[in-house]
This record gives sequence, structure tokens and C-alpha cells, in this order.
Amino acid sequence: MRSAIYPGTFDPITNGHLDIVRRASRIFDSVIVAAAENPRKTTLFSLRERESMIRESVKGIENVQVDTFKGLLVYYAKQKNATAIIRGLRAVSDFDYEFQMALLNRKLVSDLETVYLMPSEEYTYVNSSIVKEVAYFGGRLDCFLPPGVAKALADKMQGDTKKMV
Amino acid sequence: MRSAIYPGTFDPITNGHLDIVRRASRIFDSVIVAAAENPRKTTLFSLRERESMIRESVKGIENVQVDTFKGLLVYYAKQKNATAIIRGLRAVSDFDYEFQMALLNRKLVSDLETVYLMPSEEYTYVNSSIVKEVAYFGGRLDCFLPPGVAKALADKMQGDTKKMV
Amino acid sequence: MRSAIYPGTFDPITNGHLDIVRRASRIFDSVIVAAAENPRKTTLFSLRERESMIRESVKGIENVQVDTFKGLLVYYAKQKNATAIIRGLRAVSDFDYEFQMALLNRKLVSDLETVYLMPSEEYTYVNSSIVKEVAYFGGRLDCFLPPGVAKALADKMQGDTKKMV
Amino acid sequence: MRSAIYPGTFDPITNGHLDIVRRASRIFDSVIVAAAENPRKTTLFSLRERESMIRESVKGIENVQVDTFKGLLVYYAKQKNATAIIRGLRAVSDFDYEFQMALLNRKLVSDLETVYLMPSEEYTYVNSSIVKEVAYFGGRLDCFLPPGVAKALADKMQGDTKKMV
Amino acid sequence: MRSAIYPGTFDPITNGHLDIVRRASRIFDSVIVAAAENPRKTTLFSLRERESMIRESVKGIENVQVDTFKGLLVYYAKQKNATAIIRGLRAVSDFDYEFQMALLNRKLVSDLETVYLMPSEEYTYVNSSIVKEVAYFGGRLDCFLPPGVAKALADKMQGDTKKMV
Amino acid sequence: MRSAIYPGTFDPITNGHLDIVRRASRIFDSVIVAAAENPRKTTLFSLRERESMIRESVKGIENVQVDTFKGLLVYYAKQKNATAIIRGLRAVSDFDYEFQMALLNRKLVSDLETVYLMPSEEYTYVNSSIVKEVAYFGGRLDCFLPPGVAKALADKMQGDTKKMV
Repeated sequence: MRSAIYPGTFDPITNGHLDIVRRASRIFDSVIVAAAENPRKTTLFSLRERESMIRESVKGIENVQVDTFKGLLVYYAKQKNATAIIRGLRAVSDFDYEFQMALLNRKLVSDLETVYLMPSEEYTYVNSSIVKEVAYFGGRLDCFLPPGVAKALADKMQGDTKKMV
Repeated sequence: MRSAIYPGTFDPITNGHLDIVRRASRIFDSVIVAAAENPRKTTLFSLRERESMIRESVKGIENVQVDTFKGLLVYYAKQKNATAIIRGLRAVSDFDYEFQMALLNRKLVSDLETVYLMPSEEYTYVNSSIVKEVAYFGGRLDCFLPPGVAKALADKMQGDTKKMV
Repeated sequence: MRSAIYPGTFDPITNGHLDIVRRASRIFDSVIVAAAENPRKTTLFSLRERESMIRESVKGIENVQVDTFKGLLVYYAKQKNATAIIRGLRAVSDFDYEFQMALLNRKLVSDLETVYLMPSEEYTYVNSSIVKEVAYFGGRLDCFLPPGVAKALADKMQGDTKKMV
Repeated sequence: MRSAIYPGTFDPITNGHLDIVRRASRIFDSVIVAAAENPRKTTLFSLRERESMIRESVKGIENVQVDTFKGLLVYYAKQKNATAIIRGLRAVSDFDYEFQMALLNRKLVSDLETVYLMPSEEYTYVNSSIVKEVAYFGGRLDCFLPPGVAKALADKMQGDTKKMV
Repeated sequence: MRSAIYPGTFDPITNGHLDIVRRASRIFDSVIVAAAENPRKTTLFSLRERESMIRESVKGIENVQVDTFKGLLVYYAKQKNATAIIRGLRAVSDFDYEFQMALLNRKLVSDLETVYLMPSEEYTYVNSSIVKEVAYFGGRLDCFLPPGVAKALADKMQGDTKKMV
Repeated sequence: MRSAIYPGTFDPITNGHLDIVRRASRIFDSVIVAAAENPRKTTLFSLRERESMIRESVKGIENVQVDTFKGLLVYYAKQKNATAIIRGLRAVSDFDYEFQMALLNRKLVSDLETVYLMPSEEYTYVNSSIVKEVAYFGGRLDCFLPPGVAKALADKMQGDTKKMV
């Protein structure tokens, strides 16, 4: 049985993330979508909110679980006996950082592979920051986000626009 | 009549920006240089100062107007009946972000084109951040900035170097 | 009246090219799609065939004309009194070459602008070489090419697969 | 049971290719290394030679098979019931081409994933062309190629340096 | 006698930096490793700590000196009569920024060259930020840092994880 | 005494090449501009013609010599006791190839450094291929080439336009 970790901040999860989850779930026996808890990084949604939005969004996909982690990703992946880490690769600007992280992670844990998947071209430009930017200014969100997430983001923005990152 | 919006923070406007304004003014019947008001972004110059420096700098170019806007650029452009948004493209590192924004903007407002222009090669390395960096350390500014802007930046830096972003 | 030249080999014209033609036609009063005759470059279709496929494909777009040219593009554009050259920008790998050509062209003819447009994301991966590759191996062509062009390419491939470039 | 195709020209197979084969073999139940027969591409080694060098080189890896194919990769992969295509990603310059091919392939066969793996950093600069260049000028080959391949390449170069591509 | 400046924040110095220092020391008669004092940039280690870690790390290399500077690099380099500035180039994402800085620096001081060196491939992914990230989460540091620096970083992280940048 | 090799095809030498030669000559005690003889690469000018145009163009620069070489560059550099190989870096698209060659060369000869210099921004778009393209169509050459070279290229093109590569 081969499992993979799909890590991220998911602040919040987008349709682009979900596209990668679905692709990963066809390649691996099980996929863990793992939201990172990072005390040094301010997020718009709390870890619990992010986790619960992921859980809601992946409900239909059978071999997918949701979890949270803190500390170094590679040690978490090792502890879960994962075969691979999943990363979405959308643009050249992702490349160098991804390459450096993959090489660093191999140095720390040598038998853990990093696997890159490409999202559908319609999600090339969707990422959490750009979605929050649109939400902040009251733009439409329904083609970028799962329905529940779009509502949660609009509510959050109305309640407290100052918190946005 | 076709008009275009050239949006930016212009904190402050540089000779590189002016080069793009001049090129755009030859392609469109009218060009609006639009300074963005963004409550979540700290600027060295206030919106009024930025607007007034732009106004001073574009005085000689006939079909150019100056304005400010807040909220999503595409909604502002739509309201102005603009045909296109103008963007300067200087380096590969601009590319991915510009591509993502263009696609996102099309999703929000489908009949608004994004048009990319290349500045003269002598302005490839001039941007507002690098110019503020040089000013902070007392370097010469006259080949990077319109005369009035160079003076305003030097004054600002002397008065309050802490404010610099 | 401002006109623009959209130059290319168009061997053959694709839906990606047509997408750019349509966008350009909204920005300029008139657009000339100009097929290059280059004695040093082998093409699958003759200059006449390429020109005629372009003509067929742009029939519905009002302010678009079709032409052919040889020699340096900038001299041809100058002779046509064009304000700008249109280029499609699809990927980072296009960037350096485009930037170098734009700067060179400015050196040769200083008052001719190069304007970059981005095709719809669904055409990011469509180019003449890749389409010929698919055709060579008998793959489906209808989502990449205007109907007449798809048929002409399939016929050409069947008649003489050796000629392909 | 999930299988993947690792396609290529393999003219000849290098240690960089083998590194990717090994990584893929840990992720998939079976991996087919598939040498492409392309009548329009001149190769230094014949299809049979390339296939036999691959076979020799992957002998130690259990779940790996060797094959050859012609025509469009996606149709071959489909016929083999493959879940995914494997590609090595070494440098930014690979990126655009890979992205375009992945999107094109999805258009042709929608339920076939492309999976990108990164080779060890020591193989970043090893590719078949550069290895043939070194061999042509008599440079050492043993750190770039499996032993049998290094010998075959040296022999081939001595016998017929003209044939090199 | 030709000397070069190798400037940086060195917060802290890594094995990747040391690799560049060694390469530079073979090309120039003398190399000054110069730690930047920048009041607007928060560092984990103080200027004195950074300088002392550099001094300890370069002890074995004969023609290398250590210094600190504030203000614009080019004016400091000029005052030291340096022939060149040394920069490490590890990844494409470094390129645009480096190119812009080199052109800007030439504008300010025309007879000062910028020389780019490539670190060994094993240091491609080592930089001060990534090393601090690993240290923060308690990962192993000995293959990324000189021994004294690894210890200092681990101590610093234990004493005050909040300070990390 | 430290010497450097500046290798290339120089078919023909351009003002961009000369800019790099001048920069290199300030860093090294002596610079050898070395034209490559490569039987597998067709050039417009013969090795003798290329060598003689280089010789003419560098006449004013004191510590520069001209030579030709065949075989692997690193072995030639070693035999000349060179400390470094000089390469011009103009654009991101040069980067990956240069990085791969530098790493390969280090593997073959470990104590030979590759040093990258950036040409003046006005030569960013000048390379031998683009200059031949302009010459082929009768465009002006005097701002891209040393005077003697511009004449030789115009003559060559008139005499035999078919030979161009």
C-alpha cells in the first residue's frame, strides 16, 4: 500500500488544490491532505477552520484523509509511512523553490519521493492569496472555490477585513 | 474611441513608468494613469502625493489623464469603459504573476484586454523599490526619476527614513 | 487610424493564432495578418496555401486583412504605416526571444511599438509544431485548428508525410 | 495495479534516466521504459540498440519492463492501460515544453496523468546530447553512463563519428 | 593587485557561501567577505555575531579578509578599491534580481564589475532562510553549515525561537 | 599570473562579445579569445576568417590574445593553464544550458572555474544569429558589429546568401 502526503497551508483550500487531490488519489492507494500549523505564519483562517473546510471539500473522494501537522514535513511524512509528497506545479516561478525543497527534503529523509502534478489549465491562476485579494474587494468567488469555502471567505472578509493576509 | 488604464502603486512614478505611458499614448486614443489606493499596503508617499507627482510628470503628453482608484482594477476599468489594461513587462520574473492576473481578470470581466509593452532597455532595472533603496542610502537619483520626483524622494528620505518600505 | 501587423509563419494557422487576431482587432482600427516568406525556412504548406488558410479563417472578423511579406518585418511594417507589431506571449520560454527581437526592432525602426497579448489559457499549449506532430501520428485536430485547416493538414499528411518539418 | 510509462528516445540511456526509473519503480506497481521509434528523428543508436542498452541497464530493478513504441505516446499508454506517464524535470528550461505536452496529452486522453520526478542533483546536467558531445571529443564517460552504455558509445564514436547527432 | 568584495547578509554564513568564497579566492588576489549592516532588515544574528561566524569559517583560506559595511555596496566597494563584486548564482529565480542590481550598480559606479560564480551542485538548495527554517523545527544542520555556525544556530533557536526571521 | 579563456564560435564576433572581452581583461592578467573549430557545426565564416576578425577587433586591448581550439574546451583550457572560463550571461534562457555546462566541466576538470559576466544592457539582444538574420535581409549592421566585421558580413551575404546558417 502506497500513501502520499499533500501538504499545504490551505488558507483556504481552492478548486486548484482539489484538482491536485483528485489526480493524486488516482495514483496512490491513499492520500493525506495535511494542513500545516506554523506558529510563525499568520493565516486568515485558524487551523481548525482550514482543516474543516478541507474535510468538507474532499468528502466525495474515497481514498483521501485529512490531517494537520507541525514541524518539518519530512518527519511527519516519515511517521505516516508515506511513499511520497505531492506538490502542484503551476508556473515556472514555482520551480526553483520546489526544486530546492525537494533536494533539501531528500537530504533529510532519503527514501521519500516528491511527486509533481499539474493542475488543469483553468486553475493555473488560482491560488489562496489571489482569491483572498479578490474576496477583500468583494469580487465573485464561486469559480475559484468550493461552495462552502466561498461563503466562509466572504463572511470572514465582512466580519474582519483587517485580519486578511 | 479606445482608452486604456495604466494601473500601479507609483510609489513613486519612475522614468520606466513614464516610458510605458508614452508608448501606450501612441497606441490608444486616451490613457488613464491610475494610482491604486490599497488600505492593506503601506506606501512611502500618500495617495495624494503619488497622484500629484504623476500629474506633474505626464504634463507634456497630450492624451493622458491621471486618476486614483480603489477596489478591484477590472471593475474600475469597466466603469471607465476602458478597452484595455496596460502593463509593463521587464523581466521573466514579472511573467508568471502577470499571466495569472491577466487570466483572473478575464474570468471576472471577459471583454477587457491586457496589453503588455516593453520599456526601453535602459529602464529594465528601474523600479520603485530599487529607487527607494538607493535614495535611502543617499545615492544619485536623477537618471531614474523625473526631476520633481527625485527631489521629493530625497526630501522624504531625509525627513523620515523610518517610513520607508 | 492605427493599424497593427500580426506576423508569423502560420504553417498552418491555429485556433491560438485566431484568438490573438480577435483580441488585436478590438484594440486597433485595422490588423494585417502577415504570413512570412522566408527562403531559408522549409514549411509544410506553401506561402499561397498558408495565406489562403488564414484568409478563410479570419473571414468573420471585420477589420482584419491578410497579406504576405518578405525581408525584415520592421521595414514591411514601416511601409504599411503600422503603429505596432502584435505578438502572442504564451510561456516564459517565449519571453527572452521576444524581448531580444523587440529591442532589435526598435534599434532598426524606433517609432514602431511591439504589443504583447495573451491568448486564452486553453490555447497555451497549441502551436503549429505540436499540431503537425499530432497530425503526423493521426491524432484528432479539431480542437486545435479551424475546420478547413484541420482537413488540409490531415490531407497533406496523408499525401506526403515525409515533407513534414 | 497501477502502471506507468517512462517514455524517451534514450539515445543512449544515461545514469540520469536510470535515477528516474528507480524513483518511479517505488511509486508504481510496474514501470514500462518505452523507447520511441520516430522515423523523422535521426538517432545515433538504432531502436534495437537503444532497447537492448535499456534492458541491460534496468536488469536489477524488479518491477520494470522495457518496450518500444511508435505513434502518439498517449495512445500507446492507453493501450497499455497505464495510469500515468513519468517525466524527469531537471531544469526550468524543461518546464514550458513539459507543461504544453501535459495539457495537450490530457486533451487527447483525459484520464492519463503526467507525473514529474526530480533526479538526484548530481544528474541535473547529464543528458544524452551532452554525453554524446563529450564522447565525440574523447572525454571520460563513466560517471554519466551505465558501464555497458559507456563502452557502446565510445565504440560507436570511434567507428563512425560522422553519424553523431 | 585585484581585489573583490563578496557582500551579503550572512545570517548566518552557510557551506554554500563558503564554497563561493573559496572559488573567488582562486580568481582574485584578495577577497573581502563583507557583512551588510542594514537598519531596515531584521536579522537573527547581530552584525557582530555574523562577522565573527564568518571570520571563524574562512580562517583556513589565505587571501580572504572579513569586514562589515553600511550604505550602498558600490560606494563601499569603490572605497576599498575593489575590481569586482562577487555574487553566487544558484537558480534562475536569482537571475532577474541579479541582472537588475548589476545594471543599477554600473550606472552608479561604472568601473566596477560584477562577477557571477556557481556553487557546487550540492549547495544549490542551501540558503540562510531554508537553514533557519530547518533549525526552527529541530532538523539536522551539520551538512549545511560550518560546525561552529551549526551550534550557534541551534543555541539561538533554543534560546529564542520568537526572534527568527 | 591568472589567465582566462573566452571561448565561442564567433561567427562573427559582435560588439556584445567585445564588451565581455573588455570586462574580462580588467579581471584577469591575460585573456585568450578562443574560436572553436567544430567539424559538426556549419559556420558562415571559416575558422581562419573568424580568427582574423577577432584579431582585428581586439587589437586595442593589451592583455588579450587570440587562438583557435578543437576538442573539449576544458582540456584546451587545462593545457593553457587557464584559471577560468569566461561566459557572457545575457538572458534567463542562457541560464540552464550554462549551468549544465559549468557542472559538466567541473566533473571533467575540477580546478577550472567558470566566471559569468554581464554585457552592457545595450548588447542584451545582440547575438551572431540575429545579426546574420538582419544582414541576410539587408538591414543596417553598424551598431551591432565592429566596422571591419560589418563589411565582411555584408560582402559574404551578397556573395553567397545560400550559405547562411
